[in-house]
Amino acid sequence: MAGTEQTTRERILAHGLDLLSEVGLSGVTLGVLAENVGMSKSGLFAHFRSKDAVQIALLQQMARTANAVVVAPAMQRPPGLARLTTLVEGWLGWTTRAGLRGGCPVAAALFELDDVDGEVRDEVVAMEARWRGLLSQLTREAMDEGALRPDLDIEQFVWEFCGLYLSHHASHRFLRDPQAEARALRAFAALVDRSRPNSSSKETHS
Amino acid sequence: MAGTEQTTRERILAHGLDLLSEVGLSGVTLGVLAENVGMSKSGLFAHFRSKDAVQIALLQQMARTANAVVVAPAMQRPPGLARLTTLVEGWLGWTTRAGLRGGCPVAAALFELDDVDGEVRDEVVAMEARWRGLLSQLTREAMDEGALRPDLDIEQFVWEFCGLYLSHHASHRFLRDPQAEARALRAFAALVDRSRPNSSSKETHS
Repeated sequence: MAGTEQTTRERILAHGLDLLSEVGLSGVTLGVLAENVGMSKSGLFAHFRSKDAVQIALLQQMARTANAVVVAPAMQRPPGLARLTTLVEGWLGWTTRAGLRGGCPVAAALFELDDVDGEVRDEVVAMEARWRGLLSQLTREAMDEGALRPDLDIEQFVWEFCGLYLSHHASHRFLRDPQAEARALRAFAALVDRSRPNSSSKETHS
Repeated sequence: MAGTEQTTRERILAHGLDLLSEVGLSGVTLGVLAENVGMSKSGLFAHFRSKDAVQIALLQQMARTANAVVVAPAMQRPPGLARLTTLVEGWLGWTTRAGLRGGCPVAAALFELDDVDGEVRDEVVAMEARWRGLLSQLTREAMDEGALRPDLDIEQFVWEFCGLYLSHHASHRFLRDPQAEARALRAFAALVDRSRPNSSSKETHS
């Protein structure tokens, strides 16, 4: 029985994450999700007691998926700029490589939940903090390696890095610009270039 | 009668834009908007025949508001880097200065409607194209003035510029980081710096 229970839950999470990537958090109601999974709303209710509970479970499912698709390949590289670069390349457009129909649920949530308080927002805040923490750690490793300057403002670097991801998401998924990835990689190369020890630029200093 | 008619429509648009900035397009249904304005759903229906029609009218209202709050002050500056900088400073966090409760409806729509086709998406695509056209024009003026290098890749510059806006929106409105504006202005200064005629950086070349 426990096995069947888990399989149904997994099926709900897989369908739900696909739906979430396409329609955003506000579109994932218990009714719509039940229809997508092909089960009754009361059947779904046995697994998740509220819309918030299902949204939080889907965000956690997304984190596990992104970890496998984006983070794990980067962690196989040696620490330093190589690892950071592999992470960037894996992060851009990762949902397509994860087999999802839509875009990044967290990127969408940053704009959907900016003015909407609650436990779903709190979950996204915590996820975003962990993610920026990982980016900071990989940036620090590239500094320790000597590829980035020792006095780099890590927070500023990560901040610009995140802007590059959001701009890629908007141009790739919304504007459907075929140049999106090339532009993102060029912006990343420029950010790294001015953060190198021998760069003449002073702007990323803290 | 025509005067009263217009006043009611204006009242709907003012309340609706405030609501839109807070809850996003999916939250602005005819029912919710009618309740916000304090009129019946059938009364609202006399002004707007569908959810799509009201959303498009609200996006156009937003464009008029942003034009007054962000674009007009920039256009009073002489063409060149001064005008471009004034535009950036006015663009960051413009909705608060426009008296709106929430964030930028177009920034949110770039993520909300990326996978949802229809006439509302088409309207946002057209608005975003006009906006990026204006950013390109002001960048061109700064090149003509000699403040930016003559072989600058304008599209890349504007692309990074838009990423900076999105990162500011996420860090200011979602993460509620008090450093958001300072980080955005530092990123803009760095982008301008490496786009100057005497910059040693090559990354923004086409």
